[in-house]
Amino acid sequence: MTEISGFKSFSELARPALRQELERAIAASAKHGTPGLQEMITYQLGWSGENAGLKAEGKQIRPLLVLLACKAGGGDWKNALPAAAAVELIHNFSLVHDDIEDDGEVRRGRPTIWKVWGEAQAINTGDAIFALAYASLVNLVESTSPEIGLKSGKIFHQTCLRLTQGQHLDIAFEDQENVELESYWQMVGGKTAALLSFSLEVGALCAGVSTESQTHYRDFGHYLGMSFQVQDHILGTWGAEEKIGKSTTGDLVTRKKTLPVLYGLAQEKAFYEGWNAREITPEKALVLSQILEAEGGRAYAQSNADRLTDLALNALENANPAGEAGEILHEIATKLLKRQA
Amino acid sequence: MTEISGFKSFSELARPALRQELERAIAASAKHGTPGLQEMITYQLGWSGENAGLKAEGKQIRPLLVLLACKAGGGDWKNALPAAAAVELIHNFSLVHDDIEDDGEVRRGRPTIWKVWGEAQAINTGDAIFALAYASLVNLVESTSPEIGLKSGKIFHQTCLRLTQGQHLDIAFEDQENVELESYWQMVGGKTAALLSFSLEVGALCAGVSTESQTHYRDFGHYLGMSFQVQDHILGTWGAEEKIGKSTTGDLVTRKKTLPVLYGLAQEKAFYEGWNAREITPEKALVLSQILEAEGGRAYAQSNADRLTDLALNALENANPAGEAGEILHEIATKLLKRQA
Repeated sequence: MTEISGFKSFSELARPALRQELERAIAASAKHGTPGLQEMITYQLGWSGENAGLKAEGKQIRPLLVLLACKAGGGDWKNALPAAAAVELIHNFSLVHDDIEDDGEVRRGRPTIWKVWGEAQAINTGDAIFALAYASLVNLVESTSPEIGLKSGKIFHQTCLRLTQGQHLDIAFEDQENVELESYWQMVGGKTAALLSFSLEVGALCAGVSTESQTHYRDFGHYLGMSFQVQDHILGTWGAEEKIGKSTTGDLVTRKKTLPVLYGLAQEKAFYEGWNAREITPEKALVLSQILEAEGGRAYAQSNADRLTDLALNALENANPAGEAGEILHEIATKLLKRQA
Repeated sequence: MTEISGFKSFSELARPALRQELERAIAASAKHGTPGLQEMITYQLGWSGENAGLKAEGKQIRPLLVLLACKAGGGDWKNALPAAAAVELIHNFSLVHDDIEDDGEVRRGRPTIWKVWGEAQAINTGDAIFALAYASLVNLVESTSPEIGLKSGKIFHQTCLRLTQGQHLDIAFEDQENVELESYWQMVGGKTAALLSFSLEVGALCAGVSTESQTHYRDFGHYLGMSFQVQDHILGTWGAEEKIGKSTTGDLVTRKKTLPVLYGLAQEKAFYEGWNAREITPEKALVLSQILEAEGGRAYAQSNADRLTDLALNALENANPAGEAGEILHEIATKLLKRQA
């Protein structure tokens, strides 16, 4: 996300307002004798504990996309703040639970909630953040209108359900020998694309755009998420460590059923043999990644990513976003989707 | 709940309608290639898997209280069905997560979700049920009015947050040597009373009762929950096994910080010594329960339960519930709160 200057200035402008809205949303969680719960929530949001600060807060791409979509749709981005806070909270809820489900020990450079407070409190803290997200969204009724508030609520419920559907498939893949491509796309659609899709759609909805335009924003978010996830799976197999800030070929070591891997398994050739032979060490992963590339796995995944990128940019064009916010949305899409491995 | 004939007939009348509403609510969870998720949800609701049926479904007291409050407030109970389904779903969500957090292996005579499908899928299934509860509640907009739908949404968010606050305290108590009485009441208020309170309030709200009357229904639910929980803690220490269907003195064996225990610990006499001495075997628990009774722990808890029962019945009187539904509410309160140890 570096070098996005338009985005950077908008981010600097909007983040303090978002912070304020988030503080308003979570204020209720300190009541009824539960400052301990509040402490875990502010830790997750990156506001408290060791190494609190910008890095621990995360990039907040999703809530900023909500605000940008509202602005690009011709609205006042401040009206969309309750939705932006709800998106950021739901994202954090899913991170808290995903980290338990995947045994993730580090998040944004710090120990995950369950590592610090144990699984029971972590599950419950995720639940509290889930409830706070809904409580924040309902504030749209005041900042926009009851109609927009209700409409947003309906698509929010569907989005939250889609998140759990994607996660269900992702967990199930671990024990499945064969994963159908259709299931892969459904998993990505739920786990990554649903919340991005909601972010763009709800922002546009807050601006009061037409139903048709709302659909274009939703599609933009959907394809942005789909393409981003495929790119991420390419980077997780052939990425340059210094560029993406996480270990390369890591997806092979953890035996993640990514798109290139599914392609490779379907060939039933050398990659298939190597994958099934035994444990995948980092050394073996490097060799396997070269075999997979030779068998066409990388090109296959990249062509899918490119196709999805085109669909995303096409949807954005149809949405016809206005002014500077529209330019920033273009900027984000181009940069996010053209990360090089 | 046996021998409540008015309740029994209402239950027989309303349960099929509730089942239909629940089926409508969870239909979305089978979409997007996730029949496995749907299977876990219907298992939790007692509809599928081994020994599915009435016992596995549970008593469904809470959703039936929603419908009864609506009827007692002069409304058509069918209009409150989306709220009743939401309450039953939130209750089940909390059971799924509580069972993971407390290592509970059996629920309603069957293995818990995490025992069958593992923790990761169980956490995620609870999240899906949480989302479905919200999705159901929003259907109130059609069955009542947008105003009532929005108002219900606001108190529902608070209720869900209270549930997690109560659970937070309950988990925290396990590692605390001293638990203040104030914290105990806050825990019970969140963990047990909040959802009962919401059940009565939202039912009355669906009937369109006055704000004052709505408060009385809410208070009735609150004190019903508080009193019920204290009674449950008395039964868990001195209950007759054949009457309550679970092991007696069990709360002592699991070292639960119940109201009588907190009273006993505060005395710093023989019970205090015995509690802190070593592991509490079932044999030792029986002796400890007798010591606690002799030190006044049982009488103290009972007087609190009685006080809360009076407050509950008083609030119900103020609510002035109409007709047969009102009589059934009286019936439930009296029976629930006068269970003998």
